[in-house]
Amino acid sequence: MDVKKKYQEYTLHLQKIADLRYAIAVLQWDQETYMPQKGAAFRAQQIATLSEMSHEMFTRESFKNLLQDLMAGGGLDETAQKNVSLSWYDYTQQQKVSGDFVRRLSEAISTSFQAWVSAKSAGNFSLFEKELTALLALKKQEADLLGYEAHPYNALLNQYERGCTVSLLDRVFNSLQQPLKKILDAITASPQVTDDFLRRHYPKDQQWAFGMELMKQLGFDFTAGRQDIAEHPFTTNFSSQDVRLTTRIDEHDFSNMTWSCIHECGHGLYEQGIPASAYGLPLGEFTSLSIHESQSRLWENNVGRSFDSWQYFYPQAQQYFPEALKEVPLQQFYKGINKVQPSFIRTEADELTYHFHVLIRYELEKKLLDNQLAVKDIPAYWNDQYYKLLGIRVPDDKKGCLQDVHWSHGSFGYFPTYSLGSFYAAQFFDAAKKNIPNLSPAITNGNYKPLLDWLRISVHAHGRRFTSEELCERICGSPLNIDYFIQYATAKYRDIYGFKEE
Amino acid sequence: MDVKKKYQEYTLHLQKIADLRYAIAVLQWDQETYMPQKGAAFRAQQIATLSEMSHEMFTRESFKNLLQDLMAGGGLDETAQKNVSLSWYDYTQQQKVSGDFVRRLSEAISTSFQAWVSAKSAGNFSLFEKELTALLALKKQEADLLGYEAHPYNALLNQYERGCTVSLLDRVFNSLQQPLKKILDAITASPQVTDDFLRRHYPKDQQWAFGMELMKQLGFDFTAGRQDIAEHPFTTNFSSQDVRLTTRIDEHDFSNMTWSCIHECGHGLYEQGIPASAYGLPLGEFTSLSIHESQSRLWENNVGRSFDSWQYFYPQAQQYFPEALKEVPLQQFYKGINKVQPSFIRTEADELTYHFHVLIRYELEKKLLDNQLAVKDIPAYWNDQYYKLLGIRVPDDKKGCLQDVHWSHGSFGYFPTYSLGSFYAAQFFDAAKKNIPNLSPAITNGNYKPLLDWLRISVHAHGRRFTSEELCERICGSPLNIDYFIQYATAKYRDIYGFKEE
Repeated sequence: MDVKKKYQEYTLHLQKIADLRYAIAVLQWDQETYMPQKGAAFRAQQIATLSEMSHEMFTRESFKNLLQDLMAGGGLDETAQKNVSLSWYDYTQQQKVSGDFVRRLSEAISTSFQAWVSAKSAGNFSLFEKELTALLALKKQEADLLGYEAHPYNALLNQYERGCTVSLLDRVFNSLQQPLKKILDAITASPQVTDDFLRRHYPKDQQWAFGMELMKQLGFDFTAGRQDIAEHPFTTNFSSQDVRLTTRIDEHDFSNMTWSCIHECGHGLYEQGIPASAYGLPLGEFTSLSIHESQSRLWENNVGRSFDSWQYFYPQAQQYFPEALKEVPLQQFYKGINKVQPSFIRTEADELTYHFHVLIRYELEKKLLDNQLAVKDIPAYWNDQYYKLLGIRVPDDKKGCLQDVHWSHGSFGYFPTYSLGSFYAAQFFDAAKKNIPNLSPAITNGNYKPLLDWLRISVHAHGRRFTSEELCERICGSPLNIDYFIQYATAKYRDIYGFKEE
Repeated sequence: MDVKKKYQEYTLHLQKIADLRYAIAVLQWDQETYMPQKGAAFRAQQIATLSEMSHEMFTRESFKNLLQDLMAGGGLDETAQKNVSLSWYDYTQQQKVSGDFVRRLSEAISTSFQAWVSAKSAGNFSLFEKELTALLALKKQEADLLGYEAHPYNALLNQYERGCTVSLLDRVFNSLQQPLKKILDAITASPQVTDDFLRRHYPKDQQWAFGMELMKQLGFDFTAGRQDIAEHPFTTNFSSQDVRLTTRIDEHDFSNMTWSCIHECGHGLYEQGIPASAYGLPLGEFTSLSIHESQSRLWENNVGRSFDSWQYFYPQAQQYFPEALKEVPLQQFYKGINKVQPSFIRTEADELTYHFHVLIRYELEKKLLDNQLAVKDIPAYWNDQYYKLLGIRVPDDKKGCLQDVHWSHGSFGYFPTYSLGSFYAAQFFDAAKKNIPNLSPAITNGNYKPLLDWLRISVHAHGRRFTSEELCERICGSPLNIDYFIQYATAKYRDIYGFKEE
């Protein structure tokens, strides 16, 4: 068989695996949006069976041989070579675990998710303890199977961010703390801003309509995606032509829905920008979670909490919510939505204290992975850390260690990518401002096309062609550097709080 | 390997196939409820891949051998024997078509469905012609592969109703026409009833809430199912614990939503009553489409259009729709919802003229299958028949040959089961009245539990254990007999229209 035919066979096989994987994603999306309660048990079984099948197809001997032939044979163009070498990496990772393990993990995740929903609704972590303990045991086993140096957590971090390690993250978080504290101290010493108006009554239907309008104007294509309500906001996709966002609405909180909408929209814009022609192939996938989060955080914060954006959006917001916002001037609104203040919920945190939320989860996960912390002790540890780092007393598990869905998905090692994503976002947005003529006035006029076009070309279109680091070098001419975030934050909060700190 | 182990292996294998089949059903449900437009192409591919996999798993040599061993070996209890013999029948049918054929058919169905949606929305059959022609060609090929005697349509009828043939249906429809005409003539000669109030303004949200309330009171378990909006109402399920109903709402039509809700609820109650313990096995499936339709039609008509039911429901309806119904007395309402009048839309037809809608589709499908009619000539033939049989001029394809989703699903041979279902419904309801003490007063008091319990035991719990005919014999002590329907209809309309006809 010639190399062209073999590559075609490879493509077809990966597309079929993608069909299965995306079917799983539909089952999961439905599980978190519409599935009735009693559907859970068979749904868990359905997802497990499809996961096992997908794993079997990816790790079967004939596919391994095909990959080896393609790598040995030559004659592939650069794109094809890139796909094959990424598939080979994926193969070496996936073949370390058995189909049976994949099935058990999948079942444990479904069970945990249901337990988390119940526990969260009851505000009682103990209802989640048993399932999380079982799931964590499997994740530890997975780390052992995947292999690691230095720390078992490294094996899991690597799943979301290839090459990411505890030592790298320790360095990042350590270098962050002092400059972050400096800004926070300057803010604390300044006159505070008010944000009470954000907790007035914002009717549900109006919030929904306003969120949809925001996303439309940012450029989300609703003929290739949609939004629904879920317990925890997330984005998923079943091709780049079918991207699903979710949100949640609290009638007494303007922020919750608004910035979760923009955040998920950022994820969604990334997925819609990945070429459909690469469906099923590595180049049809996203680079890494930190780059995914760079997109969501860039839209959420650098764009979505900027004065530029709200010059355009605020008059609209006032029309949607006349009673709550009519008498609040734009300047006050802008300051209010950027108020820095320790709070309980990560997804609602300001851009500065946000990283303490991540840090707490990061340290906690590290300790869980190397058995320094038991699952049953999570609430106590969590509450203790929130008091130590943010000075606040967590009132209950719902506002504490049950707030995030991630652990119920078995996603240990995911949280750090939120911080990395924020740092990439600041660095990318700096590059955007340098590279896009008149970006600021465009945004002020509600024209997000220049920015989206630039992100499409710079980030989205590449799929998984470059690693996070390579992408950063290409876009910014330098590796990840948290100084961009610190500079961005210093300038922003100096303006808002009026402090003199350089 | 002993027989017990083999049977366990058989069960596990079928459960995995069911996991795939139900995943396909989720993808299809999403396709018809929530999927954004551009998602269609990859969704078609995803459904096709999973369909091909499911077919491969069912027809693989090792499964065939397992079935043969189980049939030859003895030592199975009666239930296990029944499962195995039904699986063997399914195997003999499925192995007649190739995996590649299954894939092509699946893709053609997805493409046709999208074309139908567009064509219907434009009211223009020609936009559907190409896709339907391609799909019909595949269905003819399928009939040839499956094999048949006398008429190719028989092969397709047999897919929905084992043993059903053109000659049987010709006989049923022929014997129906004269008694039906007799009742219709008596009605025509009587003073007509009014139903104008059914086309007043019925607000959308109120309709939705009323429909949900109806289904709850009929006994649908919303912890094991839900309802959504779709272009064409349908019921599907992903286990008996997750049953999905859909409906549509027209603000100027009380009937459309109401009886489609009750109809689909009847389907849903059947699925929820099939034992979850038989998940994936033949006995965990429904008997046949005519029995499925007997359940939907029984609830829709024998229950849902009865005076007994509306004595209970009508005061509620008046509370939901005070402006439209406040001044309409119950007697007038009851007569109005049972008004007999030729109309365009099958799902909204009265219980008598309904069968002409089915007859037209039946004759048309027969002609399509033996090449007496070309796809492009469907609208002309359709409109002609509606004028001949019902005396009405079809204004456009939307109210004509595009109204039903079935052909876009490749469902040729499905429609006749609606009439059979109505006849079974009348016969079963007659048995219900004889077997359930005080059924009528229970219904008058909104207590549907005795009826549902009886249907659970008599029909639902058996899954596929009995054929339609066997079930009818067990329940009624006699085979299908359309006299029950004629008697039911004569009594009902004599009461409503006040004619003297015996």
